[in-house]
Amino acid sequence: MAGYSGMGMEELSQEVARLEDEAAQLKAKGLSLDMTRGKPCPDQIDISKPMFDLFDSATDLHDGGFDAGNYGCPQGLPSARRFFADMLHVPQELVYVGGSSSLNIMFDIVSHCYVKGLRGATPWRELPKVRFLCPAPGYDRHFGVSAHFGIENVPVPMTEEGPDMDVVEELVEGDPTVKGLWCVPKYQNPMGITFSDECVRRFASLRPAAPDFRVFWDNAYYVHDFNDTPDGLLDIFDAMRDAGTDDLVLEFASTSKITFPGSGMACMVANEADLADLMASFAVQHVCTDKLSQLMHARYLPTPEALEAHMAKQAEFIRPRFELVESKLSEGLAGMDGVRWTHPNGGYFVSFDGPEGTAKAIVGMAAELGVKMTAAGATWPYGIDPKDSNIRIAPTFPSIEGLSQALDVFVTCVRLVCARQELQRRA
Amino acid sequence: MAGYSGMGMEELSQEVARLEDEAAQLKAKGLSLDMTRGKPCPDQIDISKPMFDLFDSATDLHDGGFDAGNYGCPQGLPSARRFFADMLHVPQELVYVGGSSSLNIMFDIVSHCYVKGLRGATPWRELPKVRFLCPAPGYDRHFGVSAHFGIENVPVPMTEEGPDMDVVEELVEGDPTVKGLWCVPKYQNPMGITFSDECVRRFASLRPAAPDFRVFWDNAYYVHDFNDTPDGLLDIFDAMRDAGTDDLVLEFASTSKITFPGSGMACMVANEADLADLMASFAVQHVCTDKLSQLMHARYLPTPEALEAHMAKQAEFIRPRFELVESKLSEGLAGMDGVRWTHPNGGYFVSFDGPEGTAKAIVGMAAELGVKMTAAGATWPYGIDPKDSNIRIAPTFPSIEGLSQALDVFVTCVRLVCARQELQRRA
Repeated sequence: MAGYSGMGMEELSQEVARLEDEAAQLKAKGLSLDMTRGKPCPDQIDISKPMFDLFDSATDLHDGGFDAGNYGCPQGLPSARRFFADMLHVPQELVYVGGSSSLNIMFDIVSHCYVKGLRGATPWRELPKVRFLCPAPGYDRHFGVSAHFGIENVPVPMTEEGPDMDVVEELVEGDPTVKGLWCVPKYQNPMGITFSDECVRRFASLRPAAPDFRVFWDNAYYVHDFNDTPDGLLDIFDAMRDAGTDDLVLEFASTSKITFPGSGMACMVANEADLADLMASFAVQHVCTDKLSQLMHARYLPTPEALEAHMAKQAEFIRPRFELVESKLSEGLAGMDGVRWTHPNGGYFVSFDGPEGTAKAIVGMAAELGVKMTAAGATWPYGIDPKDSNIRIAPTFPSIEGLSQALDVFVTCVRLVCARQELQRRA
Repeated sequence: MAGYSGMGMEELSQEVARLEDEAAQLKAKGLSLDMTRGKPCPDQIDISKPMFDLFDSATDLHDGGFDAGNYGCPQGLPSARRFFADMLHVPQELVYVGGSSSLNIMFDIVSHCYVKGLRGATPWRELPKVRFLCPAPGYDRHFGVSAHFGIENVPVPMTEEGPDMDVVEELVEGDPTVKGLWCVPKYQNPMGITFSDECVRRFASLRPAAPDFRVFWDNAYYVHDFNDTPDGLLDIFDAMRDAGTDDLVLEFASTSKITFPGSGMACMVANEADLADLMASFAVQHVCTDKLSQLMHARYLPTPEALEAHMAKQAEFIRPRFELVESKLSEGLAGMDGVRWTHPNGGYFVSFDGPEGTAKAIVGMAAELGVKMTAAGATWPYGIDPKDSNIRIAPTFPSIEGLSQALDVFVTCVRLVCARQELQRRA
């Protein structure tokens, strides 16, 4: 199928009529499908349930000298810290494990910087302006945290190699009101791309104007490859050591997409001084975090090999869904003007771009036809996509059959919106 | 044994010498005992381990239509909300269950009021002064939360019936900078007393000067009776209904002293409007909280009867320790001038008062003799006990034998410090 710009008027009108008919037929099916969030499908959840077989009333709850069943050990159980240290290739001493949500750790860090100030810096609440850089398209919940604290979210263009580092360097090194940058370095949400070695090295070499500037390096999908050509990501803490920088980056990960979403364990990696300063505030919030969950996870995935084998099982659920996205979009949209999408080797998202001014219309129409997608604009700060072109596709939750139907709906919506746009352009 | 004020000089000097000798002998034992926190003893933890027997890889993780193993259900699983609704005698719709720490929920609420403002009120960060009332002696971690946000902690006298309500009413109803009050209404930390019906009714009838004033009603020990003469506490939400008040109180509880300290589930009870406003901020922090822990707890303690039977098992560990405190203090300190302690029927603490100006010296001396106690002053805002008289005794963690030794040390320290004080008074 060629683009609509080359079509004659009559052919184009017929195409619109045909697509409207197709849309009406799809609507009549009364579908109710959900592609809004990066949520594993129900069968995929079940693969982690053998974790429960390891525990009964006779199980010893001690871990490295700590009783996981009692108060204490606020930095997280030794075996849980070891799990993330192995996974992220960082020293165990720099790992904090706490709670079930890495987003919540990020929130608590921003709160600390806002209320108390990081390591003696002026609390952000006292500053006339604080800005965070938001490579976009990006993760809406990241942007939501900084927005909550009245921080100005500044969009930075994303490329296939990572954020536009010329822009990042200029802003981070030149503007002391820039205090943070949100990013997902591997299988980025929503593009699915991985930051290039060059990009990681430029991050590690930043010389921020603000001493309390930090990169929020959310490595949410670091072990989430799903095919035989996985991306490689340079380790940021290694790159910082090479660059002679130290307290520039806070790294995050969780087991939400490894075991049970929302009920796993979450971690932060930071240099010693940052860790000590943040732990002092965390100690005001709680006595300690849930160590039984940590113990269950650490015993279920006790080695890097066990984790690798487990992630291979996860991939069996995810790969066919991403293959279906690729084949459905290729079949239905190849060659269309101004339409493109990404082709990830891991993670949970495909980023789709339609022609300027079509994203809201496509998502709105899909909703009318029974397919919920992430709101158009959600991938941009304040929900404002300046081109109204980006749509995040989250294909993991529906069944294969449901996903197939949802993608048929999506393709029809894209084509109909684009055809109508072309018609309107000529009017 | 009579008080030291009636002793002649020689007798008193001999007593000091005898006690110094006793202290030296105790020190020589090289004890290392911990009475700092309200922590269950290791054997007591084990009684909750049968919880793990209920789960294996075949277990269905659904609860009231929700998949506990996946994202979603941010207000907490239905069965977990039902657990706390039954326990606290409140409607399930008003219960939020989230995380493993009720203290962290309180922190997040204060943060919300500080950053965003409660239900449209001016954020506290914008106000020149915000004050919290702190009935003292009270719970140090409560005071730490408000202090973290730069809130002025104002001590209010505690009585055997609860906080001095004349003072509370005057401040809450007369001073719009008073935005909160911390309290533990049953088996109060550290006094172990329970608020009288009259006190609860006066709380429920407060007409605050500030519309965003809330009582933080931390019902941490509501089901934690340990003997046959348990205290009764009037239900605050019932009392508010009778008084025609509504959004005055936020109630809290957790299973930290029911199952696994720090690894249980925590709840908040609030009226609908407060709940909706707070949940909006919580949604910025995380997608949802750990529902697997909720599911395990709700299935392990599925009925009020199961909870009651479980708490009876807990009591078996706690009662003998409190009895030992009572007998050791009675034997060692009865009749001493200016010395008194509380006689709780539940909870985790005994509150001890020595003569003015002795608490720090007693706690310091006990530490030298190998017995760690909660820092003197910790039960007061900013750690400043104006009379330097109050000491919190937390007898649950040590073994019976260890506790017995620790109490011998404590009694010797009290007597020696008091005898020396009397000697100094005469000098």
